[in-house]
Amino acid sequence: MKAAILCVGTELLFGQITNTNATYLSKELNNLGIDALYHYTVGDNAGRLEKIINYAFEDCDLILTTGGLGPTQDDLTKEIVSRVFGYEMLLNEEELKVLKRRFEARGSKMTENNIKQVYFPLEAKILQNKLGTAPGMFLEKDGKMIFCMPGPPREMMTMFEAEVRPILLTKTNDVIFYKILRTFGIGESSLETILLDLIDKQTDPTIATYAKEGECSIRIASKRQTIDEAKAAVDSMIEEIKKRLGDAIYSFDNEDLSELVAKRLIEKNITIAAAESCTGGLFSKMLTDYPGISAVFDRDIVTYSEKAKVDELLVSEEILDKYTAVSPETAISMAKNLYNKTGCRLTVSVTGYAGPFDEETGKIFLGFCFDGKEDCVELNLNSNRREYNRRYAALNMFYKINSLICN
Amino acid sequence: MKAAILCVGTELLFGQITNTNATYLSKELNNLGIDALYHYTVGDNAGRLEKIINYAFEDCDLILTTGGLGPTQDDLTKEIVSRVFGYEMLLNEEELKVLKRRFEARGSKMTENNIKQVYFPLEAKILQNKLGTAPGMFLEKDGKMIFCMPGPPREMMTMFEAEVRPILLTKTNDVIFYKILRTFGIGESSLETILLDLIDKQTDPTIATYAKEGECSIRIASKRQTIDEAKAAVDSMIEEIKKRLGDAIYSFDNEDLSELVAKRLIEKNITIAAAESCTGGLFSKMLTDYPGISAVFDRDIVTYSEKAKVDELLVSEEILDKYTAVSPETAISMAKNLYNKTGCRLTVSVTGYAGPFDEETGKIFLGFCFDGKEDCVELNLNSNRREYNRRYAALNMFYKINSLICN
Repeated sequence: MKAAILCVGTELLFGQITNTNATYLSKELNNLGIDALYHYTVGDNAGRLEKIINYAFEDCDLILTTGGLGPTQDDLTKEIVSRVFGYEMLLNEEELKVLKRRFEARGSKMTENNIKQVYFPLEAKILQNKLGTAPGMFLEKDGKMIFCMPGPPREMMTMFEAEVRPILLTKTNDVIFYKILRTFGIGESSLETILLDLIDKQTDPTIATYAKEGECSIRIASKRQTIDEAKAAVDSMIEEIKKRLGDAIYSFDNEDLSELVAKRLIEKNITIAAAESCTGGLFSKMLTDYPGISAVFDRDIVTYSEKAKVDELLVSEEILDKYTAVSPETAISMAKNLYNKTGCRLTVSVTGYAGPFDEETGKIFLGFCFDGKEDCVELNLNSNRREYNRRYAALNMFYKINSLICN
Repeated sequence: MKAAILCVGTELLFGQITNTNATYLSKELNNLGIDALYHYTVGDNAGRLEKIINYAFEDCDLILTTGGLGPTQDDLTKEIVSRVFGYEMLLNEEELKVLKRRFEARGSKMTENNIKQVYFPLEAKILQNKLGTAPGMFLEKDGKMIFCMPGPPREMMTMFEAEVRPILLTKTNDVIFYKILRTFGIGESSLETILLDLIDKQTDPTIATYAKEGECSIRIASKRQTIDEAKAAVDSMIEEIKKRLGDAIYSFDNEDLSELVAKRLIEKNITIAAAESCTGGLFSKMLTDYPGISAVFDRDIVTYSEKAKVDELLVSEEILDKYTAVSPETAISMAKNLYNKTGCRLTVSVTGYAGPFDEETGKIFLGFCFDGKEDCVELNLNSNRREYNRRYAALNMFYKINSLICN
């Protein structure tokens, strides 16, 4: 089945909000084995709305719409969809009662414009909106299907889950199974070169690579008649990719690097403390994004000034004078002294120039002390982008921790 | 001028990433007084890509594309766009040199597939990509214009700013002037209620409110023949809104709260240190997002364990036993002891339950010590969302700092 997602709303075209509805629906369609060929966004304009629905039905059997179901005059979706299907809109007395009860329960008076929300073609299946006043609808005719859902994401998702997915499940046979591998330290074009022959001859499973803030992911997907067949096809492709990429793959389940490391630290009960300079707390923020990390995470000391490095981490004036604050010696001293101070099994540190001021920007050192053993990583990021440098330095801390605690 | 935004990428149709490019470009077009009529997203499919470009040009004079410029075989945008315009693609020797130098500077070898990125029609104006290897291009013929930009958001935004906007400015007449006010502590629906009559009767300037992670923004825009007329219209509307919202407006220039506070701390030369518990370094991360903050920011101590609170901040066992770690007493003790320890003029602290475990989740205390004067803020966030609670707590720290240092 081929699908299009059509989001209606002027606020999307103004850039006032980001279209997360399209993301959600794409993911859900994908899980159902339905290919989304297009996303469209149009404003509250009758002519363009009608045109795009007709256009979408040229290639697709299924359209999911969001938005334009509300009480105001510029909410047009149901009207135009009904016109395309050649159906007349009528007041639905049942739904009017529901709507009135809803207003009563809220203790507010229903304004006249709300009645518009309970007009539907007789041919429509009405889709309940548990969280809002605008019901959705489903129309099907000559092999073409359309679901109209509300625009607010929570209303839409709840309606999709309760009303749309069950219908779609009866319309599709194929299933898609996919896995997303996560890699670190290989650029996207190198990754593709390594996998080129596999990508070239792909039919099923399909292989797609994509880059995301210093990491690359590989999506391996198979569409078969049964989940077992699809799974087997994906697994055997993963075996082949593993041979080529080895340790660069850090997750076979689309896990964030920081999340994976947090989980493993907890599992292995490795207590940890950190000392940060240029990342300014980002490492600690990412680690504590993971709930339950308090079981092993002791503290993080952001020593932004040199004085703080001396006060808090006892980095000697001698080291700072001789090697400067951005040096392997300072990084190791930070980690080692924190290790001695806290008694944690693992301590990590980072010091460097995040930018954008200096010609040395992107020069960053990471220090580690694990069960007393010191280690240092030097990064030369060749980048003037403060945010990227900070994030990439923090990711490298997680990557190194992962290899330290897994070996 | 009528525009369409066309985003190319299978990962969008799979729902693996959210289309923030469309949001950004819509906003920018809007600021230029150019109407975006459509957003389209298609995969890396030659037939559908060609079809949608032709379709878009039926209604629009301008298309902005993102994605599909990379080195891999499924990157097709330039090829298809050139075909629609009837132009041939040729190797650009100049750009090849630039590309090779870029790889050399990185110390990595250029793989053969990268050459694809420097093929362009002779008729194209090449758009420099400061942050990546794939240049963009601009084509114009018979009143139809198309800009092809890369998919990664940072590369795209940088290219738009440096290369695309200057060209668009020469193509448009009307000017839009707008201001974005930022508010804190008022929900979006309350905000709308307060401004309802203004919103209802709006023609020009237009007023739009939108919510963003605990903050609300108000966009006031006017589209006129001259910038002065537009500016005057916006300013007089702002006066009216100011009367109604007062202190809840913290910025008239769409500044992030954390950025604004960082700037003011530097301007006023107020040294600052922080102590965090549940936010895990987020406050410090946000503060150090601002380059140059090292002039006043001394340190941040993330005391995640109770032991760390005692070790690092000398919070007494007595306070922890009597009032627990999440109490006004602990928050104030953290800030006060840090004040005495660091000698900074302003110290701030946060301790609380971020969730999602506890029934007390959302109970958070902020401590402040400014020139020796203590203060405490209690938050009851009534939310089980860890990420939201952490972020909202950090924002509240910035909001309170702003009022402390401005009074």
